[in-house]
Amino acid sequence: MGNIGVHLIADLYGCDFDKLNNQSFLRSTLTTAAQVAGCRILSVNFESFEPQGQTGVVIVAESHLSIHTYPEFGYAATDLFTCGTQTMPWIALSSIIAALSPSRHEVKEIKRGLSNLI
Amino acid sequence: MGNIGVHLIADLYGCDFDKLNNQSFLRSTLTTAAQVAGCRILSVNFESFEPQGQTGVVIVAESHLSIHTYPEFGYAATDLFTCGTQTMPWIALSSIIAALSPSRHEVKEIKRGLSNLI
Repeated sequence: MGNIGVHLIADLYGCDFDKLNNQSFLRSTLTTAAQVAGCRILSVNFESFEPQGQTGVVIVAESHLSIHTYPEFGYAATDLFTCGTQTMPWIALSSIIAALSPSRHEVKEIKRGLSNLI
Repeated sequence: MGNIGVHLIADLYGCDFDKLNNQSFLRSTLTTAAQVAGCRILSVNFESFEPQGQTGVVIVAESHLSIHTYPEFGYAATDLFTCGTQTMPWIALSSIIAALSPSRHEVKEIKRGLSNLI
């Protein structure tokens, strides 16, 4: 009896415009976060928007990590969903926060698949 | 003043094993969901697991839709994050639920980026 995984939903405010619009930086940030969480990376997928904004999703064997940025608002939405007991989503989130240095952030932790499944 | 987007976090229980393990079916389900929500699809990314299980993420201009399935538990975790006022994430979720026919589901709606940003 337990849950399938943990899903962290985080809003980061007051981030630097240039960091939020730098796909290379965000790609490195998100893959590092996956690695320090103990996840096995399967694919890294990014898209850029005009005049600004980036979206990235890292698919891992244990689910996914995503980031969507709004440089014009200094805002990034990230969510980290990791399944299993061997992964550390909070470590991943700390790594992202350290990289983006938001002035403020809000996090919700949601336990997924709570239903006597496992 | 408002929020950047809406994030639906849904757990679907009691789904059919074969549907949950059918990447082609899930690909169609998730892209249809994105379309009926009014999203613009940018990429569709799936991974298969052994002995079973599928992960899919559709990146859309308005953020992302994901699904992670555990056929052995009849369980699917889906999350639909859509930004802007022109998209309809609840319609997308209804479409996924209609396709997967869970015996039970739980949904959380999270408003993202609430901070006088826009």
